[in-house]
Amino acid sequence: MIGRLNHIGVATPSIEASVALYRDMLGATRAGEPFDLPAQGVRVCFIDLPNSQIELIEPLGDDSPIHGFLAKNPRGGQHHVCFEVEDILEARDALRARGASILGTGEPRIGAHGTPILFLHPKDMGGVLIELMETPKDPH
Amino acid sequence: MIGRLNHIGVATPSIEASVALYRDMLGATRAGEPFDLPAQGVRVCFIDLPNSQIELIEPLGDDSPIHGFLAKNPRGGQHHVCFEVEDILEARDALRARGASILGTGEPRIGAHGTPILFLHPKDMGGVLIELMETPKDPH
Repeated sequence: MIGRLNHIGVATPSIEASVALYRDMLGATRAGEPFDLPAQGVRVCFIDLPNSQIELIEPLGDDSPIHGFLAKNPRGGQHHVCFEVEDILEARDALRARGASILGTGEPRIGAHGTPILFLHPKDMGGVLIELMETPKDPH
Repeated sequence: MIGRLNHIGVATPSIEASVALYRDMLGATRAGEPFDLPAQGVRVCFIDLPNSQIELIEPLGDDSPIHGFLAKNPRGGQHHVCFEVEDILEARDALRARGASILGTGEPRIGAHGTPILFLHPKDMGGVLIELMETPKDPH
């Protein structure tokens, strides 16, 4: 079921400071432009690596789900891991049948790459918050 | 400087249970054999994804650095992220010159893939424990 490791999600109190960290300190050569995902309460920015991406995530708005994470981890930290799946609804149904808990309503939302996503509850996933993302049909 | 996302490190109280999770629940198709790294106090197992790997890490011995992490995260969780670099000593010296803190003595050790590795202190890295690993000269 799970395919490519699409990205790792890293929460940060400041996308600008984190872009500087990955670009100027760690020498990553490609950082995208930050953009808002208001429906998810986050502002994000992707750092491109040769084989995967880092998604920097900053809280957007008072209800952002990232505030709680940053309260526990004020410097930021590893927030989630995103794996690609070919068909998000097939993946959801198979995982439910195997006993996994899907976060929220269980209906996929459109994620930062424009394809449907779901999150799996870390309690069933060895403490890791896992995002599943349908593989873009026209990869970019 | 940083190149491929070689792997994400996931701490677990049981490699066997985590292999079952990634293989049987999440449908990853390739899991290696677990092996011990006594010098680092860990037992590890790699799950292969099409573009990267998950390194499952279980404590080995009473002095394992993973015990503290599992005390805070009993189910396990995301422990570190490993980026490849072409030359570990050049990377270390450049990062030190930019103010990063290298964990331990600062002398590279040989990691799970047989090439030299170093860890960077999360306090300078946005709360993320970063491993740098010299790219294998003969990739496998």
